[in-house]
Amino acid sequence: MLVIISGRVNLTNNQIVTKEAVILANGQFPESDFCLDILNSGKDIICCDGSADKIAAFGLKAKVIIGDLDSISPELKKRHPEIIIDKSDQNSNDLTKAVHWAKENAYTKVIILGATGIREDHTIGNIYLLSRYNEIIAVQMVSDYGIFDVINSSSVFDSFPGQQVSVFSTDQDARFTFAGLKYEVNNRALHEAWMGTLNECTSNSFEINFDKGSAIIYRVFD
Amino acid sequence: MLVIISGRVNLTNNQIVTKEAVILANGQFPESDFCLDILNSGKDIICCDGSADKIAAFGLKAKVIIGDLDSISPELKKRHPEIIIDKSDQNSNDLTKAVHWAKENAYTKVIILGATGIREDHTIGNIYLLSRYNEIIAVQMVSDYGIFDVINSSSVFDSFPGQQVSVFSTDQDARFTFAGLKYEVNNRALHEAWMGTLNECTSNSFEINFDKGSAIIYRVFD
Repeated sequence: MLVIISGRVNLTNNQIVTKEAVILANGQFPESDFCLDILNSGKDIICCDGSADKIAAFGLKAKVIIGDLDSISPELKKRHPEIIIDKSDQNSNDLTKAVHWAKENAYTKVIILGATGIREDHTIGNIYLLSRYNEIIAVQMVSDYGIFDVINSSSVFDSFPGQQVSVFSTDQDARFTFAGLKYEVNNRALHEAWMGTLNECTSNSFEINFDKGSAIIYRVFD
Repeated sequence: MLVIISGRVNLTNNQIVTKEAVILANGQFPESDFCLDILNSGKDIICCDGSADKIAAFGLKAKVIIGDLDSISPELKKRHPEIIIDKSDQNSNDLTKAVHWAKENAYTKVIILGATGIREDHTIGNIYLLSRYNEIIAVQMVSDYGIFDVINSSSVFDSFPGQQVSVFSTDQDARFTFAGLKYEVNNRALHEAWMGTLNECTSNSFEINFDKGSAIIYRVFD
């Protein structure tokens, strides 16, 4: 059940050339078929530090392994020095380093897996960082439970009746209006992070309107 | 390794009478010894909807089961009608209903377990709701990975060198100053949720100063 955002890209010729990479962060390793299909799709896989051991155990090889290398096993580090990119600076996390590497290496989109679960501060940080990443490169994050998209302007999403939807604003004062969702939001600021959560689509699409900042839209798979 | 916030409560007689309850939310059931010790401590357990089945499978009995009852098994619902409190209104989530019930029933503190993991929007919502809950009743949230406290004014926390710490502000404009943490924050707003994350204590305590709103402090156990 792949759900696709629409109303987001305006094209003159209806063609986008994408060179997609998968970034595997070092949170909970995905278990759902949906995520595993993405891993197995043949796209280049950029591993964040210790996630390289997880992908090796899964039977796939990373295109590159990037990060401060404080959690990758010494064995793997020794075995594949040719794919290791040591970025030891502490000013950004490994996921951010991976996103920048993708951009610098001519990828035009990244799908991030494994960025949630385990430590909750990593989960929150990674989700909210999506809006920064989206300034650099087209990005989606997928977990076992749902899919995250970033929008910078009012957008329509493909959906289905009953689909659970949450909206996170990056600007506390931005005013939102929802259409096609069960719980009405009408020209209201989502001051606190929980205020846009746990909504539900009532038809086959919904619309998120807002006046500034960006928003992270989460659609639960079932 | 129980870590205790200090510098938070001013008492005239150094005594607080607490009547604590554990609220078990319907996220990931805890696995760590630390969380299971809390469950097994003999405190009254308030179950949110379907978490009642999990606690029954674990071998404990809930004091009450509260929520809109859309996820509890029909068997359990039938077996223990005397402890079921049907709160079907859709204006708040089951965790919020449990917090209110605790307050109304003379508890003075709640420890929330099982409120993270699984759906990421529930995780974010539940964490940020802590600051609302703390207006009603003293509250801590504990996961397998760390402990969450809410502060309404500048506070000192017991800690240890190397402890991972994250700070989430409920006010985008509140200005924060940290002391005793590795990455310096000096009179700076934490505009975005990731900005106060992934810090580290350098000694046996740290201090979080801020000028308005509230803050949620997360200390990772190891």
